[in-house]
Amino acid sequence: MSFPPLLEDLIRSLKVLPGVGAKSAQRMAFSLLEGDRLGGQKLAKTLAKAVDGIQHCTSCRNYTQSELCDICANPRRELNGEICVVATPSDVAAIEQTGHFQGRYFVLMGLLSPLDGIGPDELGLDRLANLMATTEVKELILATNPTVEGEATAHYIAEIAQQHNVRVSRIAQGVPVGGELEMVDGKTLGHAFSGRKTL
Amino acid sequence: MSFPPLLEDLIRSLKVLPGVGAKSAQRMAFSLLEGDRLGGQKLAKTLAKAVDGIQHCTSCRNYTQSELCDICANPRRELNGEICVVATPSDVAAIEQTGHFQGRYFVLMGLLSPLDGIGPDELGLDRLANLMATTEVKELILATNPTVEGEATAHYIAEIAQQHNVRVSRIAQGVPVGGELEMVDGKTLGHAFSGRKTL
Ligand SMILES: [Zn+2]
Ligand SMILES: [Zn+2]
Repeated sequence: MSFPPLLEDLIRSLKVLPGVGAKSAQRMAFSLLEGDRLGGQKLAKTLAKAVDGIQHCTSCRNYTQSELCDICANPRRELNGEICVVATPSDVAAIEQTGHFQGRYFVLMGLLSPLDGIGPDELGLDRLANLMATTEVKELILATNPTVEGEATAHYIAEIAQQHNVRVSRIAQGVPVGGELEMVDGKTLGHAFSGRKTL
Repeated sequence: MSFPPLLEDLIRSLKVLPGVGAKSAQRMAFSLLEGDRLGGQKLAKTLAKAVDGIQHCTSCRNYTQSELCDICANPRRELNGEICVVATPSDVAAIEQTGHFQGRYFVLMGLLSPLDGIGPDELGLDRLANLMATTEVKELILATNPTVEGEATAHYIAEIAQQHNVRVSRIAQGVPVGGELEMVDGKTLGHAFSGRKTL
Protein backbone atom coordinates (compact mmCIF):
# COMPACT_ATOMS: atom_id res chain seq x y z
CA MET A 1 0.00 0.00 0.00
CA SER A 2 1.08 3.58 -0.45
CA PHE A 3 -1.68 6.03 -1.53
CA PRO A 4 -5.29 5.60 -2.71
CA PRO A 5 -5.52 4.88 -6.48
CA LEU A 6 -6.92 8.34 -7.35
CA LEU A 7 -3.99 9.96 -5.57
CA GLU A 8 -1.49 7.64 -7.29
CA ASP A 9 -3.11 8.60 -10.62
CA LEU A 10 -2.84 12.29 -9.80
CA ILE A 11 0.83 12.02 -8.83
CA ARG A 12 1.60 10.07 -12.00
CA SER A 13 -0.29 12.56 -14.18
CA LEU A 14 1.50 15.55 -12.65
CA LYS A 15 4.78 14.10 -13.89
CA VAL A 16 3.87 15.13 -17.47
CA LEU A 17 4.78 18.66 -16.35
CA PRO A 18 8.34 19.66 -17.30
CA GLY A 19 10.84 19.44 -14.46
CA VAL A 20 8.42 17.61 -12.18
CA GLY A 21 9.76 14.34 -10.77
CA ALA A 22 8.24 11.88 -8.30
CA LYS A 23 8.93 14.00 -5.20
CA SER A 24 7.61 17.28 -6.53
CA ALA A 25 4.59 15.57 -8.10
CA GLN A 26 3.76 14.22 -4.64
CA ARG A 27 4.25 17.63 -3.03
CA MET A 28 2.01 19.20 -5.69
CA ALA A 29 -0.71 16.60 -5.22
CA PHE A 30 -0.75 17.11 -1.44
CA SER A 31 -0.83 20.86 -1.82
CA LEU A 32 -3.76 20.62 -4.26
CA LEU A 33 -5.66 18.37 -1.86
CA GLU A 34 -4.81 20.33 1.29
CA GLY A 35 -4.53 23.97 0.55
CA ASP A 36 -6.60 24.78 -2.41
CA ARG A 37 -9.17 22.34 -3.78
CA LEU A 38 -10.96 25.20 -5.52
CA GLY A 39 -7.72 26.15 -7.25
CA GLY A 40 -7.29 22.49 -8.18
CA GLN A 41 -10.77 22.32 -9.66
CA LYS A 42 -10.14 25.52 -11.62
CA LEU A 43 -6.84 24.14 -12.89
CA ALA A 44 -8.57 20.94 -14.03
CA LYS A 45 -11.20 22.93 -15.94
CA THR A 46 -8.90 25.48 -17.56
CA LEU A 47 -6.47 22.74 -18.51
CA ALA A 48 -9.21 20.71 -20.23
CA LYS A 49 -10.47 23.82 -22.03
CA ALA A 50 -7.00 24.97 -23.06
CA VAL A 51 -5.90 21.58 -24.39
CA ASP A 52 -9.16 21.48 -26.31
CA GLY A 53 -9.45 25.07 -27.50
CA ILE A 54 -5.97 26.39 -28.18
CA GLN A 55 -4.69 25.83 -31.67
CA HIS A 56 -1.94 27.21 -33.90
CA CYS A 57 -2.72 30.21 -36.13
CA THR A 58 -2.95 28.86 -39.68
CA SER A 59 -0.84 31.78 -40.87
CA CYS A 60 1.89 32.40 -38.27
CA ARG A 61 1.67 29.27 -36.06
CA ASN A 62 1.31 31.29 -32.85
CA TYR A 63 -1.23 30.11 -30.27
CA THR A 64 -4.78 31.26 -30.90
CA GLN A 65 -8.37 30.30 -30.07
CA SER A 66 -9.60 30.95 -33.63
CA GLU A 67 -8.19 30.12 -37.05
CA LEU A 68 -6.14 33.32 -37.26
CA CYS A 69 -4.45 34.98 -34.28
CA ASP A 70 -5.28 38.61 -33.45
CA ILE A 71 -2.11 39.88 -35.11
CA CYS A 72 -2.59 38.02 -38.39
CA ALA A 73 -6.25 39.07 -38.41
CA ASN A 74 -5.21 42.74 -38.26
CA PRO A 75 -4.90 44.13 -41.85
CA ARG A 76 -2.53 46.91 -40.73
CA ARG A 77 -0.06 44.29 -39.59
CA GLU A 78 -0.02 42.72 -43.06
CA LEU A 79 0.20 46.13 -44.77
CA ASN A 80 3.42 46.81 -42.85
CA GLY A 81 5.08 44.10 -44.94
CA GLU A 82 7.60 42.91 -42.36
CA ILE A 83 7.59 39.41 -40.90
CA CYS A 84 9.52 38.70 -37.73
CA VAL A 85 10.57 35.07 -37.33
CA VAL A 86 10.82 33.83 -33.73
CA ALA A 87 11.15 30.49 -32.00
CA THR A 88 8.29 30.63 -29.49
CA PRO A 89 5.04 32.42 -28.56
CA SER A 90 6.87 33.93 -25.55
CA ASP A 91 9.22 35.68 -27.97
CA VAL A 92 6.20 37.23 -29.71
CA ALA A 93 4.88 38.42 -26.34
CA ALA A 94 8.31 39.86 -25.43
CA ILE A 95 8.66 41.73 -28.74
CA GLU A 96 5.09 43.02 -28.64
CA GLN A 97 5.82 44.53 -25.24
CA THR A 98 8.64 46.63 -26.69
CA GLY A 99 6.19 48.26 -29.15
CA HIS A 100 9.08 48.39 -31.68
CA PHE A 101 7.52 46.17 -34.30
CA GLN A 102 4.33 46.67 -36.29
CA GLY A 103 4.49 43.77 -38.75
CA ARG A 104 3.46 40.13 -38.59
CA TYR A 105 5.26 37.20 -36.98
CA PHE A 106 6.14 33.70 -37.94
CA VAL A 107 6.52 31.38 -34.95
CA LEU A 108 8.77 28.39 -35.57
CA MET A 109 7.67 26.62 -32.34
CA GLY A 110 11.27 25.44 -31.98
CA LEU A 111 14.67 25.64 -33.66
CA LEU A 112 16.45 23.33 -36.09
CA SER A 113 17.90 20.45 -34.12
CA PRO A 114 18.64 17.46 -36.36
CA LEU A 115 19.66 15.25 -33.44
CA ASP A 116 16.23 15.76 -31.85
CA GLY A 117 14.49 15.12 -35.16
CA ILE A 118 13.52 18.79 -35.60
CA GLY A 119 13.96 19.71 -39.24
CA PRO A 120 12.44 22.27 -41.65
CA ASP A 121 9.09 20.42 -41.71
CA GLU A 122 8.67 20.59 -37.93
CA LEU A 123 9.29 24.35 -38.02
CA GLY A 124 6.70 24.88 -40.77
CA LEU A 125 9.25 26.37 -43.15
CA ASP A 126 7.18 25.31 -46.16
CA ARG A 127 4.42 27.52 -44.81
CA LEU A 128 6.85 30.40 -44.34
CA ALA A 129 8.05 29.95 -47.93
CA ASN A 130 4.44 29.95 -49.03
CA LEU A 131 3.82 33.24 -47.17
CA MET A 132 6.73 34.80 -49.05
CA ALA A 133 5.40 33.44 -52.34
CA THR A 134 1.79 34.52 -51.93
CA THR A 135 1.77 37.73 -49.80
CA GLU A 136 3.86 40.86 -50.11
CA VAL A 137 6.81 40.51 -47.75
CA LYS A 138 9.09 43.55 -47.70
CA GLU A 139 11.49 42.15 -45.15
CA LEU A 140 12.00 39.03 -43.08
CA ILE A 141 13.49 39.83 -39.68
CA LEU A 142 15.17 36.82 -38.08
CA ALA A 143 14.75 37.12 -34.32
CA THR A 144 15.71 33.64 -33.20
CA ASN A 145 17.81 33.28 -30.03
CA PRO A 146 21.54 34.14 -30.46
CA THR A 147 22.49 30.53 -29.67
CA VAL A 148 24.05 27.89 -31.90
CA GLU A 149 20.64 26.48 -32.91
CA GLY A 150 19.18 29.95 -33.29
CA GLU A 151 22.01 31.05 -35.62
CA ALA A 152 21.84 27.86 -37.68
CA THR A 153 18.07 28.24 -38.05
CA ALA A 154 18.46 31.90 -39.02
CA HIS A 155 20.99 31.04 -41.72
CA TYR A 156 18.81 28.27 -43.07
CA ILE A 157 15.79 30.58 -43.31
CA ALA A 158 17.91 33.40 -44.82
CA GLU A 159 18.68 31.13 -47.76
CA ILE A 160 14.99 30.38 -48.35
CA ALA A 161 14.22 34.12 -48.26
CA GLN A 162 16.96 34.87 -50.75
CA GLN A 163 15.49 32.26 -53.09
CA HIS A 164 12.23 34.24 -52.89
CA ASN A 165 14.07 37.55 -53.39
CA VAL A 166 12.88 38.73 -49.99
CA ARG A 167 15.18 41.03 -48.04
CA VAL A 168 16.37 39.33 -44.83
CA SER A 169 17.80 40.82 -41.67
CA ARG A 170 19.02 39.47 -38.36
CA ILE A 171 18.35 41.34 -35.11
CA ALA A 172 21.55 42.99 -33.87
CA GLN A 173 23.75 41.32 -31.28
CA GLY A 174 22.44 43.73 -28.71
CA VAL A 175 20.89 40.61 -27.29
CA PRO A 176 23.46 38.90 -25.06
CA VAL A 177 25.20 36.07 -26.92
CA GLY A 178 24.16 32.66 -25.62
CA GLY A 179 21.14 34.13 -23.86
CA GLU A 180 17.45 33.53 -24.27
CA LEU A 181 15.35 36.08 -26.08
CA GLU A 182 12.47 36.02 -23.65
CA MET A 183 14.77 36.94 -20.75
CA VAL A 184 16.00 40.16 -22.42
CA ASP A 185 14.66 43.51 -21.18
CA GLY A 186 12.54 45.61 -23.52
CA LYS A 187 15.13 48.33 -24.05
CA THR A 188 17.83 45.90 -25.20
CA LEU A 189 15.34 44.16 -27.47
CA GLY A 190 14.39 47.55 -28.92
CA HIS A 191 18.06 48.34 -29.66
CA ALA A 192 18.46 44.94 -31.25
CA PHE A 193 15.59 45.74 -33.59
CA SER A 194 16.91 49.17 -34.54
CA GLY A 195 20.43 47.86 -35.15
CA ARG A 196 19.42 44.89 -37.30
CA LYS A 197 21.70 44.13 -40.26
CA THR A 198 20.70 43.08 -43.77
CA LEU A 199 22.03 39.59 -44.50
CA MET B 1 -1.53 41.53 -26.38
CA SER B 2 0.33 38.59 -24.96
CA PHE B 3 -1.41 35.17 -25.14
CA PRO B 4 -4.95 34.02 -26.00
CA PRO B 5 -7.32 34.19 -22.96
CA LEU B 6 -7.48 30.40 -22.52
CA LEU B 7 -3.70 30.27 -22.38
CA GLU B 8 -3.55 33.18 -19.91
CA ASP B 9 -6.10 31.29 -17.78
CA LEU B 10 -4.05 28.13 -17.91
CA ILE B 11 -0.83 29.91 -16.91
CA ARG B 12 -2.61 31.65 -14.03
CA SER B 13 -4.19 28.38 -12.85
CA LEU B 14 -0.88 26.52 -12.91
CA LYS B 15 0.46 29.00 -10.36
CA VAL B 16 -1.64 27.30 -7.62
CA LEU B 17 1.00 24.55 -7.73
CA PRO B 18 3.66 24.92 -5.00
CA GLY B 19 6.93 26.42 -6.20
CA VAL B 20 5.50 27.39 -9.58
CA GLY B 21 5.96 31.07 -10.48
CA ALA B 22 5.08 32.99 -13.62
CA LYS B 23 7.99 31.68 -15.71
CA SER B 24 7.58 28.01 -14.87
CA ALA B 25 3.80 28.22 -15.24
CA GLN B 26 4.39 29.50 -18.77
CA ARG B 27 6.90 26.76 -19.52
CA MET B 28 4.46 24.16 -18.17
CA ALA B 29 1.59 25.51 -20.25
CA PHE B 30 3.67 25.45 -23.45
CA SER B 31 4.88 21.95 -22.71
CA LEU B 32 1.29 20.75 -22.15
CA LEU B 33 0.17 22.32 -25.43
CA GLU B 34 3.18 21.21 -27.45
CA GLY B 35 4.47 17.93 -26.22
CA ASP B 36 1.69 16.04 -24.70
CA ARG B 37 -1.93 17.12 -25.11
CA LEU B 38 -3.07 13.62 -24.19
CA GLY B 39 -1.07 13.84 -20.98
CA GLY B 40 -2.65 17.24 -20.39
CA GLN B 41 -6.16 15.86 -20.87
CA LYS B 42 -5.39 12.99 -18.54
CA LEU B 43 -4.04 15.39 -15.92
CA ALA B 44 -7.19 17.51 -16.17
CA LYS B 45 -9.39 14.45 -15.66
CA THR B 46 -7.44 12.84 -12.83
CA LEU B 47 -7.13 16.19 -11.08
CA ALA B 48 -10.89 16.78 -11.21
CA LYS B 49 -11.55 13.24 -9.97
CA ALA B 50 -8.94 13.43 -7.21
CA VAL B 51 -10.10 16.79 -5.88
CA ASP B 52 -13.59 15.40 -5.89
CA GLY B 53 -13.02 11.87 -4.65
CA ILE B 54 -10.14 11.93 -2.18
CA GLN B 55 -11.13 12.54 1.42
CA HIS B 56 -9.60 12.07 4.83
CA CYS B 57 -10.13 8.78 6.65
CA THR B 58 -12.62 9.44 9.44
CA SER B 59 -10.47 7.43 11.81
CA CYS B 60 -6.81 8.27 11.05
CA ARG B 61 -7.10 11.32 8.73
CA ASN B 62 -4.96 9.74 6.02
CA TYR B 63 -6.06 10.12 2.41
CA THR B 64 -8.67 7.63 1.26
CA GLN B 65 -11.39 7.23 -1.34
CA SER B 66 -13.84 5.72 1.11
CA GLU B 67 -14.84 6.58 4.64
CA LEU B 68 -12.12 4.43 6.19
CA CYS B 69 -8.65 3.95 4.69
CA ASP B 70 -7.43 0.43 3.90
CA ILE B 71 -5.32 0.29 7.05
CA CYS B 72 -8.10 1.37 9.43
CA ALA B 73 -10.50 -1.00 7.67
CA ASN B 74 -8.16 -3.91 8.44
CA PRO B 75 -9.17 -5.53 11.77
CA ARG B 76 -5.68 -7.04 12.29
CA ARG B 77 -4.26 -3.53 12.36
CA GLU B 78 -6.62 -2.52 15.16
CA LEU B 79 -5.96 -5.76 17.06
CA ASN B 80 -2.25 -4.89 17.12
CA GLY B 81 -3.09 -2.04 19.49
CA GLU B 82 -0.32 0.34 18.47
CA ILE B 83 -0.99 3.72 16.90
CA CYS B 84 1.83 5.52 15.11
CA VAL B 85 1.39 9.28 14.94
CA VAL B 86 2.91 10.96 11.86
CA ALA B 87 2.72 14.36 10.23
CA THR B 88 1.86 13.45 6.63
CA PRO B 89 0.53 10.67 4.37
CA SER B 90 4.06 10.37 2.89
CA ASP B 91 5.33 9.38 6.32
CA VAL B 92 2.74 6.58 6.41
CA ALA B 93 3.91 5.40 2.99
CA ALA B 94 7.57 5.53 4.09
CA ILE B 95 6.90 3.56 7.29
CA GLU B 96 4.71 1.01 5.48
CA GLN B 97 7.58 0.34 3.11
CA THR B 98 9.86 -0.68 6.00
CA GLY B 99 7.40 -3.42 7.00
CA HIS B 100 8.36 -2.73 10.66
CA PHE B 101 4.97 -1.64 11.87
CA GLN B 102 1.70 -3.57 11.99
CA GLY B 103 -0.56 -1.17 13.88
CA ARG B 104 -2.69 1.77 12.88
CA TYR B 105 -1.66 5.35 12.14
CA PHE B 106 -2.85 8.77 13.06
CA VAL B 107 -1.97 11.40 10.47
CA LEU B 108 -1.74 14.93 11.84
CA MET B 109 -1.66 16.52 8.37
CA GLY B 110 0.85 19.02 9.76
CA LEU B 111 2.66 19.93 12.95
CA LEU B 112 1.89 22.44 15.70
CA SER B 113 2.87 25.87 14.48
CA PRO B 114 1.10 28.62 16.45
CA LEU B 115 2.51 31.40 14.26
CA ASP B 116 0.87 29.79 11.20
CA GLY B 117 -2.37 29.29 13.09
CA ILE B 118 -1.90 25.52 13.32
CA GLY B 119 -3.05 24.40 16.75
CA PRO B 120 -4.42 21.17 18.29
CA ASP B 121 -7.75 21.56 16.43
CA GLU B 122 -6.10 21.72 13.01
CA LEU B 123 -4.19 18.51 13.79
CA GLY B 124 -7.35 16.68 14.86
CA LEU B 125 -6.00 15.99 18.35
CA ASP B 126 -9.54 15.78 19.77
CA ARG B 127 -10.11 12.87 17.42
CA LEU B 128 -6.86 11.23 18.54
CA ALA B 129 -7.93 11.65 22.18
CA ASN B 130 -11.25 10.10 21.26
CA LEU B 131 -9.48 7.09 19.69
CA MET B 132 -7.58 6.56 22.94
CA ALA B 133 -10.79 6.85 24.95
CA THR B 134 -12.92 4.53 22.83
CA THR B 135 -10.60 1.87 21.35
CA GLU B 136 -7.91 -0.21 22.98
CA VAL B 137 -4.59 1.54 22.43
CA LYS B 138 -1.61 -0.34 23.86
CA GLU B 139 0.97 2.19 22.77
CA LEU B 140 1.14 5.50 20.96
CA ILE B 141 4.34 5.79 18.90
CA LEU B 142 5.22 9.37 18.12
CA ALA B 143 6.94 9.42 14.71
CA THR B 144 6.86 13.11 13.90
CA ASN B 145 9.94 14.65 12.25
CA PRO B 146 12.92 15.25 14.59
CA THR B 147 12.62 19.01 14.04
CA VAL B 148 11.64 21.76 16.47
CA GLU B 149 7.96 21.60 15.44
CA GLY B 150 8.03 17.80 15.37
CA GLU B 151 9.44 17.61 18.91
CA ALA B 152 7.00 20.19 20.26
CA THR B 153 4.09 18.34 18.70
CA ALA B 154 5.33 15.01 20.10
CA HIS B 155 5.57 16.43 23.62
CA TYR B 156 2.12 17.96 23.36
CA ILE B 157 0.61 14.65 22.26
CA ALA B 158 2.57 12.71 24.89
CA GLU B 159 0.77 14.69 27.60
CA ILE B 160 -2.62 13.88 26.13
CA ALA B 161 -1.71 10.19 26.03
CA GLN B 162 -0.56 10.24 29.64
CA GLN B 163 -3.90 11.75 30.64
CA HIS B 164 -5.52 8.71 28.99
CA ASN B 165 -3.04 6.35 30.70
CA VAL B 166 -1.77 5.23 27.31
CA ARG B 167 1.88 4.27 27.04
CA VAL B 168 3.74 6.68 24.71
CA SER B 169 7.03 6.28 22.89
CA ARG B 170 9.08 8.45 20.56
CA ILE B 171 10.95 6.88 17.63
CA ALA B 172 14.69 6.81 18.40
CA GLN B 173 17.02 9.47 17.14
CA GLY B 174 18.28 7.07 14.55
CA VAL B 175 16.60 9.46 12.20
CA PRO B 176 19.01 12.32 11.44
CA VAL B 177 18.23 15.35 13.60
CA GLY B 178 16.72 18.21 11.62
CA GLY B 179 15.92 15.93 8.70
CA GLU B 180 12.63 15.00 7.11
CA LEU B 181 11.14 11.62 7.87
CA GLU B 182 10.13 10.83 4.32
CA MET B 183 13.74 11.22 3.09
CA VAL B 184 15.11 8.58 5.47
CA ASP B 185 16.08 5.17 4.10
CA GLY B 186 14.09 2.14 5.26
CA LYS B 187 16.91 0.62 7.30
CA THR B 188 17.41 3.75 9.40
CA LEU B 189 13.67 4.06 9.89
CA GLY B 190 13.55 0.43 10.98
CA HIS B 191 16.30 1.04 13.58
CA ALA B 192 14.46 4.10 14.80
CA PHE B 193 11.38 1.95 15.41
CA SER B 194 13.28 -0.79 17.25
CA GLY B 195 15.14 1.73 19.42
CA ARG B 196 12.10 3.72 20.47
CA LYS B 197 12.01 4.95 24.06
CA THR B 198 9.06 5.05 26.43
CA LEU B 199 8.30 8.67 27.32
ZN1 LIG C 1 -1.09 34.44 -36.65
ZN1 LIG D 1 -7.50 5.45 8.33
